[in-house]
Amino acid sequence: MRRIGFVGLGTMGAPMARNLLSAGFAVTVHNRTRVKEEPLAALGAARAATPADAARDAEAVVVIVSDTPDVEQVLFGPGGVVSGAGPGTVVIDMSTISPGATRSFGSRLAEAGLELVDAPVSGGSEGAEAATLTVMVGGDPTVIGRVRPVFEAVGSKVTHVGPLGAGQAAKAVNQVIVGGMYLAVAEGVALAEGSGLDVERVLEAIGSGACRSWVLENRSRNMVERRHPLGFRLALHRKDLGIALDEARRANVNLPLSDLVAHLEDRLVASGLGDQDVSALMEALRKG
Amino acid sequence: MRRIGFVGLGTMGAPMARNLLSAGFAVTVHNRTRVKEEPLAALGAARAATPADAARDAEAVVVIVSDTPDVEQVLFGPGGVVSGAGPGTVVIDMSTISPGATRSFGSRLAEAGLELVDAPVSGGSEGAEAATLTVMVGGDPTVIGRVRPVFEAVGSKVTHVGPLGAGQAAKAVNQVIVGGMYLAVAEGVALAEGSGLDVERVLEAIGSGACRSWVLENRSRNMVERRHPLGFRLALHRKDLGIALDEARRANVNLPLSDLVAHLEDRLVASGLGDQDVSALMEALRKG
Repeated sequence: MRRIGFVGLGTMGAPMARNLLSAGFAVTVHNRTRVKEEPLAALGAARAATPADAARDAEAVVVIVSDTPDVEQVLFGPGGVVSGAGPGTVVIDMSTISPGATRSFGSRLAEAGLELVDAPVSGGSEGAEAATLTVMVGGDPTVIGRVRPVFEAVGSKVTHVGPLGAGQAAKAVNQVIVGGMYLAVAEGVALAEGSGLDVERVLEAIGSGACRSWVLENRSRNMVERRHPLGFRLALHRKDLGIALDEARRANVNLPLSDLVAHLEDRLVASGLGDQDVSALMEALRKG
Repeated sequence: MRRIGFVGLGTMGAPMARNLLSAGFAVTVHNRTRVKEEPLAALGAARAATPADAARDAEAVVVIVSDTPDVEQVLFGPGGVVSGAGPGTVVIDMSTISPGATRSFGSRLAEAGLELVDAPVSGGSEGAEAATLTVMVGGDPTVIGRVRPVFEAVGSKVTHVGPLGAGQAAKAVNQVIVGGMYLAVAEGVALAEGSGLDVERVLEAIGSGACRSWVLENRSRNMVERRHPLGFRLALHRKDLGIALDEARRANVNLPLSDLVAHLEDRLVASGLGDQDVSALMEALRKG
């Protein structure tokens, strides 16, 4: 496993492609906005005019784009991966999309002689830069074994969670929990401020008890300072939560907290905060 | 500081009184249901028929009872602390009650020549047993300095967070964050189950990323197994959340997640689950 096609050079994809180059893979990159290929080319990547071209001589093709329709376009649209990839090529979808669509894409790729593995990530742009992403992998164990070096070049925690689609289902669980935790910490910060407390002192006092969490340790400062640099884009979390809520509906599970987070995020996106970090949930608690 | 009166031998109070005895304090205990004094007497505590008697020769009196009216009764009711305590005695209220009531009790005690410090705790029954409680202290720094050995005998993290009432305000912040985190993890577990995932495997996969938290590490197993041993009683968390929501209203802060948790906990208490751990929030997500 040496020759990798790589489609999607956004906030997550660009540093992941860099880490693949650093790990010694021969990477051919493609991005819809093609100027984003240039910094990767400067580091030694080949450039491809279409996803098909990126896939042509690759053993595996990584796709990391925004949403389900984007993945469909990259795989099956004009100049898509299926029109370039040779038989047996492994498609690794690291986007966050619907588990159901993933299974359907898997069947369509199988008809073309291609394998699909779903492998969404978490850890945000910091994790993508530092190659410390959590990778949640779904698919056939033998196929996953072949592409594992790809995951290990971009992440520090790689778990095979189940059959095709299970990676996406696990990511949905992750986004549900993370969203709730951001809102929980935001409410704590808002109450501490409203009560006239020294917020940082209080968070330090309680942060090693039952409140102990990544969100409190890494995002409460954003909330206190009312600055929400990325991190992870609130509008993308909202998109991911939509996938999770669809899954929940299908499974007949109530997720009232995730419904609430989605509602607050909709309001924040509407007021122009969609490109800020999820910690901007704090701003939804200000009284008008 | 050697002679301590101790009022309230519940799930939290009994092990805390034991830890004071172990640390070498001379402890005189009182509990409304007096039979609960017996195990402490067997360990060397003196018994008192009333809070006044428990306070009589004490340098400090610890009170840890259920709610604001209980504290008022213990301090100012018939046979209350004020009728027994000598001038300069420090009353240490480790109950979780309203910050406003705390300030008012402080003024009334001052008129009787007594000092008040508020010092609610978190860490649940495990923390009380192991003397690893988090103690959030409000009050005069000099007075707090005098009673600090008491806190150090029952807790491992003692923080002076501000003036009288600030300990209670910090505890309210803690309960807001903790409640939201329990519900966040419960929704993740419910979605994972509904999606047919191997729940423990998925939680292991995501638990070191942005989901990392005390609640996930220590309470998700309860949720998976649908068993909710204490821990911390759901009905008491609901009571604490009521205090936090009152504070929020006073401070003109919106806490929609805490409103949701309170609503779900009301339903669970009504269906008889109030004496289970807060992890029973999971049961509110089952579809009827």
